[in-house]
Amino acid sequence: MIVGVVGAGQLARMMIPAAVQLGIELRVLAEADGMSAQLAQTAVGDYRDAATVLEFARGVDVLTFDHEHVPQDVLRAVVDAGIRVAPGPDALLFAQDKREMRRRMSELGAPQPDWAPVDSDDDLQAFLDAHGGAAILKTAKGGYDGKGVRRVTSVTDARDWIDAAVSGEGPQLLVEELVDFTRELSQQLARSIRGEIVSWPLVETVQRDSVCAEVYAPARAGAGDARKRAAEAAEIAHLIAEGVGVTGVMAVELFETADGRVVVNELAMRPHNSGHWTIEGSTTSQFEQHLRAVLDLPLGTADMVRPAAVMVNVLGGPSSGRMEDVYANALAACPDVHFHSYAKTARPGRKVGHVTAIGDDVQRVADRAGVGARFFEV
Amino acid sequence: MIVGVVGAGQLARMMIPAAVQLGIELRVLAEADGMSAQLAQTAVGDYRDAATVLEFARGVDVLTFDHEHVPQDVLRAVVDAGIRVAPGPDALLFAQDKREMRRRMSELGAPQPDWAPVDSDDDLQAFLDAHGGAAILKTAKGGYDGKGVRRVTSVTDARDWIDAAVSGEGPQLLVEELVDFTRELSQQLARSIRGEIVSWPLVETVQRDSVCAEVYAPARAGAGDARKRAAEAAEIAHLIAEGVGVTGVMAVELFETADGRVVVNELAMRPHNSGHWTIEGSTTSQFEQHLRAVLDLPLGTADMVRPAAVMVNVLGGPSSGRMEDVYANALAACPDVHFHSYAKTARPGRKVGHVTAIGDDVQRVADRAGVGARFFEV
Repeated sequence: MIVGVVGAGQLARMMIPAAVQLGIELRVLAEADGMSAQLAQTAVGDYRDAATVLEFARGVDVLTFDHEHVPQDVLRAVVDAGIRVAPGPDALLFAQDKREMRRRMSELGAPQPDWAPVDSDDDLQAFLDAHGGAAILKTAKGGYDGKGVRRVTSVTDARDWIDAAVSGEGPQLLVEELVDFTRELSQQLARSIRGEIVSWPLVETVQRDSVCAEVYAPARAGAGDARKRAAEAAEIAHLIAEGVGVTGVMAVELFETADGRVVVNELAMRPHNSGHWTIEGSTTSQFEQHLRAVLDLPLGTADMVRPAAVMVNVLGGPSSGRMEDVYANALAACPDVHFHSYAKTARPGRKVGHVTAIGDDVQRVADRAGVGARFFEV
Repeated sequence: MIVGVVGAGQLARMMIPAAVQLGIELRVLAEADGMSAQLAQTAVGDYRDAATVLEFARGVDVLTFDHEHVPQDVLRAVVDAGIRVAPGPDALLFAQDKREMRRRMSELGAPQPDWAPVDSDDDLQAFLDAHGGAAILKTAKGGYDGKGVRRVTSVTDARDWIDAAVSGEGPQLLVEELVDFTRELSQQLARSIRGEIVSWPLVETVQRDSVCAEVYAPARAGAGDARKRAAEAAEIAHLIAEGVGVTGVMAVELFETADGRVVVNELAMRPHNSGHWTIEGSTTSQFEQHLRAVLDLPLGTADMVRPAAVMVNVLGGPSSGRMEDVYANALAACPDVHFHSYAKTARPGRKVGHVTAIGDDVQRVADRAGVGARFFEV
C-alpha cells in the first residue's frame, strides 16, 4: 500500500508515524528540501505543475494532500490518468473556493452566516446596507490563519481587493455577515471511499490573533445543552461530508452564536490543527484515520482514550533554535505531557510544534499542557 | 539531535514514530536493503566491521542499537573515537555474554537459578550430579528465541556443543538449574545517562515454542501477593540497572517459581518485545523513552493510560503476502484495536507485526487483541 502526499509540512510529517505503524509506504512531494516531512520525502517539485504531480503520483495507490492548494486542472489531470485522488477534485473545490463552499452549504441547508458573492462595489454596498453597515469580506481563495479576511464598513475599505478582483489580478470575493459568536468549535470526521463515516467528539478551538492556539476535547460545556449541540454539529458535518463527497479527514469549523446556534465557518479537507489531540487522545488518530479513509480501509474507533485532552500550539518557538534546544527543562517539568516538534526553525508566529496532555479533569489537563507549551515561548 | 541506530529491524522501525514526534533525527545502519526500518535508513553495511560503524557514527549525538550483536572491539573503537554509545560496551557485555551476566548477577546478589560455567565434560557432569541429573545448557553468546538453549541429562546430550566450545569453534557454555516456574514476567525500565531511572509496571509474557506470543500489562494477579511481587521485580531491575550501568531501555526477563519467588532469566538492553504494549498503553512508550534516555533527556512518566493492555505477536503472518493484505477484514472486525505491521514478508514463525488493545478489563482487552491477531494467522 503506497500513499502519495502532496506537500511536506507538519501534516504530512504527522502521517509518518501512522504509516510506519500500519506498514503503509508514504511518499511525499515537497516544495523544497528540508521540509517538515523530509523523512518520507521522495520528490521535490512544484505542485502547480501537472507533469510534476503526475510523475510523483505514478505507482501510488492513492494521492492525498498536506494542503488544499493543488490547482483543479492538476487534480483533474491526475484523475484522468487513472490515479485515485482523495479527496477528489469535486470535493476539494469546496475547501479551495469559499464562494463555491457557501453556495454548496446553501444548497445543502447547512446553517451558515448570510453571505453574498462580491463582483462589484454595488454588491458589497447592498450587503452592507442590508446588514447594519458592517461585514466580513473574504477572498474566495488563498486565505488561511486570518489572511484573506477583512472587516469592512464601506466600499472604500475594500477598494484594493475589489479592484484586484475586477481586473482579474486578485482572487474573487465574498462577503459574510458579522456573526456574534461566543466561541469557535470544530467537528472532525473521516469518510472513506466506500462512504463509511466516523466522527470524533466536537472540540473547542481557542484562537489568538486568528491562529488556533488551544484545542479542548471534548468542547467545554458552554451555554445551553452540550449534548444537543454535539449531536447537531455531528449531524451538520455528516450532511456536508456526504453532500460534497469528501474522502479522507474533514474538519468543519463552526461558530457558536450568542443565541446558542452553530453555523459553518470554514471547511478543511485534510488532517487539521483542531485534531492534533487525537494522536494521544483518541483510539484512532486523525492521521491514521486519514490514511485508512483514502486507502478505503475500514475506519477505526474515534472515541477518547481518557475523558479530556487539551492541545496547545507552540507558536514562534524559542527565541533561538528549535524546540529541542529547551527540551531539558520542558521534559523535566512535564513528564506526563506529549511534546511534538515539527523540526522547524523558530520564527515569530510560526507553528513549530504542539503539546498535548490527556487525563480525567479538563482544567488540570489544560494546565499541564499550558505549562508544557510555555517553555517554548519566545 | 541525531541518534544513530545499528540495526534496522522492527525495533529500529518503531523508534521512527517517537523520533518524528520529538523532532529527533534518526539514522539507521542496516545490514541490507529493504529492512523493516528502511524509512530511516541512511547506510547499509556490516556492523561487525569497525570502519563501517565508525563511518556511520560520525556526526551522531549518540549511537544505540536495534540488537545486541555488535562486537565489543567495534563498540570500543567507537567509544575511543569520542562518540557516545548507549548502552556502553561495559553494560552491553552482560546482554551479549550469558556467563558474564550470571557472574555479575551473583556479585550483585540478584536472585537467579544455580548456574556454572561449562568448559569440560567434568564441569557439566558435576552440575548434573548436584542438581538431580537434569539441567539447562546454554551457549554464552548468540542465543535468542529459544536458540542456544538445550535441556540435557547427560554429557552425551551436550557432546557437539562441548566439543565446539573446547576447540574454540563454538561459543562458550554455561549450565543452569531447571527452574520449576509457573510463568514468565518481564520488568522494564529506562536509565538515562545521568542515572535517572523510570520503571514500567511488571508485565507477564506468555511464550509459545520459546517465542513471546502475548504480553499482559500489568502482570495478572497470579499466586501470592501481586503488589509485593511487583515491588520486588522493580527493585531487582533497579539493582541490575545501576549494577551494570545500563543506559537506555532494559528488560529483565524473570521466572516466577512455584514457591512464589522471581529469579532472573535474561537481560535485554534495548527496546524489547515485552514492551510493545507501551506504544498505546503507557504515557511514554519504550521507544520514546529509549531515545530520551540515550540522549540524556529527562524521562517521561511510565504509568498506564488505561488499567489494562494486552499485546499479541503476529507470528508467521498470512499465508501469502503481508499483514496489509488482510487489513480489510481485520480492521473491520476490530475498530478499537491497534495493528502494527513491520512491513516484512510472511514466513513461518517470523515476527511480522503485533496487535495491542487497551481498556479497563484485562480479559476483554485480551479477547479483543486475540481476535485482531488471529486474522493474520497462516
